[in-house]
Order: sequence, then C-alpha cells, then structure tokens
Amino acid sequence: MGKILLRGRVCYMKTKTIKIKLPSWVEPFFKGAREFYTTLEDRMDFVIELSRKNIEHDSGGPFAAAVFNSKDGSLIAVGVNMVTSCGLSIAHAEIIALMQAQSVLKSFDLGAPGLPCCELVSSTAPCAMCLGAVPWSGVASLVCGARDEDARAVGFDEGSKRRDWVKELEIRDIAVTCDVLRSKAAAVLREYVGKGGIVYNGGLQTRK
Amino acid sequence: MGKILLRGRVCYMKTKTIKIKLPSWVEPFFKGAREFYTTLEDRMDFVIELSRKNIEHDSGGPFAAAVFNSKDGSLIAVGVNMVTSCGLSIAHAEIIALMQAQSVLKSFDLGAPGLPCCELVSSTAPCAMCLGAVPWSGVASLVCGARDEDARAVGFDEGSKRRDWVKELEIRDIAVTCDVLRSKAAAVLREYVGKGGIVYNGGLQTRK
Repeated sequence: MGKILLRGRVCYMKTKTIKIKLPSWVEPFFKGAREFYTTLEDRMDFVIELSRKNIEHDSGGPFAAAVFNSKDGSLIAVGVNMVTSCGLSIAHAEIIALMQAQSVLKSFDLGAPGLPCCELVSSTAPCAMCLGAVPWSGVASLVCGARDEDARAVGFDEGSKRRDWVKELEIRDIAVTCDVLRSKAAAVLREYVGKGGIVYNGGLQTRK
Repeated sequence: MGKILLRGRVCYMKTKTIKIKLPSWVEPFFKGAREFYTTLEDRMDFVIELSRKNIEHDSGGPFAAAVFNSKDGSLIAVGVNMVTSCGLSIAHAEIIALMQAQSVLKSFDLGAPGLPCCELVSSTAPCAMCLGAVPWSGVASLVCGARDEDARAVGFDEGSKRRDWVKELEIRDIAVTCDVLRSKAAAVLREYVGKGGIVYNGGLQTRK
C-alpha cells in the first residue's frame, strides 16, 4: 500500500470518492432561469451573469458555462469555475457544465439519439483542456464570449491551443460562434482581477 | 426553471452532485501495490496491469494512469477509464488519477510546496483533453506507454493535438518520457478490441 511523507508525517494513500457539488448559490440562480433563451446573445448574457455571480460569491475564477437546447434555447445545465473551491484543477466551468448535462440527461454522449441538440455556451473561449473535452462530450455547437487574448490580457493561461482550433472543431461537425457579447464577457475578467482575484495557473507559478 | 422534452416526457432540469467512485476492484488492487516502483518501467508495468484489469472487469476502456512520487517511486493515486461506467465523457484515466491525487493530497496544484514531486504515468499518450489537463494539474513529469498511433490503429480518437505536444509540455518545465513498455501497453489496446470492446468516441459516431 502506498505511503508518502507529507509535511513530515507518514500518510497512507487511499482511493477516494470524488464529489463535485456546485456552490450553494447556483441552485436558486438555476431555478430562477427563464424558460427559453432564444438568441445566442440571450444565452451568453445568462452565462456572463453566472460568471459575475461566481466572483460576487467568491466561489472561483471569473468563468461560467452552460448547456442549452440549441433548438428552443431551454437551459439544460450550468457550470462555474470551481478550481479553488473544490480543490480540483479540472474543475473549469465548461467541464462542470458538461458533467452536469451528462448527469441530468443520463448519457456520456450528449449527441446520442433522443437527446436535445446540446450547445455549450462559455463566457470565455475554452482553454486547451476544455477544448479537448468538447468533441468527447457530444455537443453539437460551441458559443464563446471573451477571447483567449482577453483571458491572457489579465494573466490567465489558456494553454497550448492550435491556432486553427475553430476549424478543427468544425471538421468534427461542431459549429462554433465566437465573440458573442465579447466586451461584456471580457469586462468580468477585468473586474475579477481589479478586485484582487487570484490568477492561479495550476503548477505554473508554484513549481520551480 | 429549465424543462426539456426528453423521449416524449417533460423533464425539469436540476443541478446534481457529481460523484465519481472508482470501480470496486480498484481498492484492493491499490492496497496490494508495492511500497516503491523504482524505475519508469516498474511504474508503467503497474499501470499497464491496471489497464488490463479494467478490461477484465469490464469497467471501461483499455486505459489506466497513476500518479507516483517521482523521487522514490511511491504510489500516490490511480485512475482507470470510466467513461461508460460512470456516464461522463471526461472520465478518462488521466483525469481520474489527477483528481484522486489532488483529493488525497488536498491541493488542486500537485506542484505546491511541501508536496511530493508528482509524476503522471499513462498507459497510452494522453488525448487532447488530458494533455490540456496536465499543465493545470501541477505534475512535474509525464510518462507514456503506447503512442497516439497505437490508439488510433485500433479505432480510438486522440483528438486534435499539436505535433509538437512533447515540446510544448517541456517549455512548461514538465519532463516527458514516451514509449516506456510501448509494445506491452499497445498489446492491451489490441486485446480490448479483439475481445469486442466498444470503441466509443463521444458524439462522433452517433451525431449526424
């Protein structure tokens, strides 16, 4: 059995059940959502508000995402950045929203027959990890607010992405729309940093 | 509040607590691990055996990963592919192993001061999503068995990766070692497909 020396103490390693619960303020926000978000701007506006609430409640970074039924704009699932609050580096808004949608629709493939046509709406263009997660999720489309460069401008690292990432998704039949309410989305990133929010980037600044 | 029509029934959407529990056979396997895995081959051999067990127990795809303390080879955490068994497209072996390690070490950054020097060992080179997750996790090194082309040869999609992905990690001070027990790792992929294991690729084959 594995054991390691951790801060001077011998610790025995064990397997864990990982539990990922949205911050408590999300449930009432989710329940208060409208029945339909007809336009892409409506959907993005909802997601930007979610990202702003995540700052207000100090529950994570300034990023939010949601999965909508693209046909009628009904809301299926939401996610916010929870890296610091749940202690998992993978807990980006898009990953959380996709897990929530798959859990509620009971399918690891959101493109499976009989399911609504799923659209991922993200307040900022996805980082390299979340971008890689998009094709596996089965969503049919991706909608982005702020650009990579807006996130980088305030110090966030988007990871190593191909320049032609939009085209790479489109080759896989995933429609991409960028710059939806971009300046409003980017303003939330600046607001977060302006308030002194932590710009963590995984191991990048702590590792030698 | 969101509601959608699902297979002819109106379903009200709600938020969920996501629980990710390793298959029950993993705990005894983990407890039976040696105290130290000194060489990279020792570590990979353990991970390949884990990937084979995942096939044997029919708990997911033929992929496994583990996090070791690279200094002495002690085992910190394990992960297996659980996409089909837990119904989440992000449940790749590397993602599970990283979540397990961060949960047990109580840090979203495995590179934080006071923690062991964390090494991610993966039975197959990571897909685009898992590759994107590596820098955020704080691991100091990555060790891979089978190559992308070995996974593709049996029908798995590795996603859109940059050709120079190894270099991109090295720029971030993450050491990469490829082809460790490659043929043994690739043999498990072929064994899985030979036994009729499902090669799912997210929405790719089900979406129009």
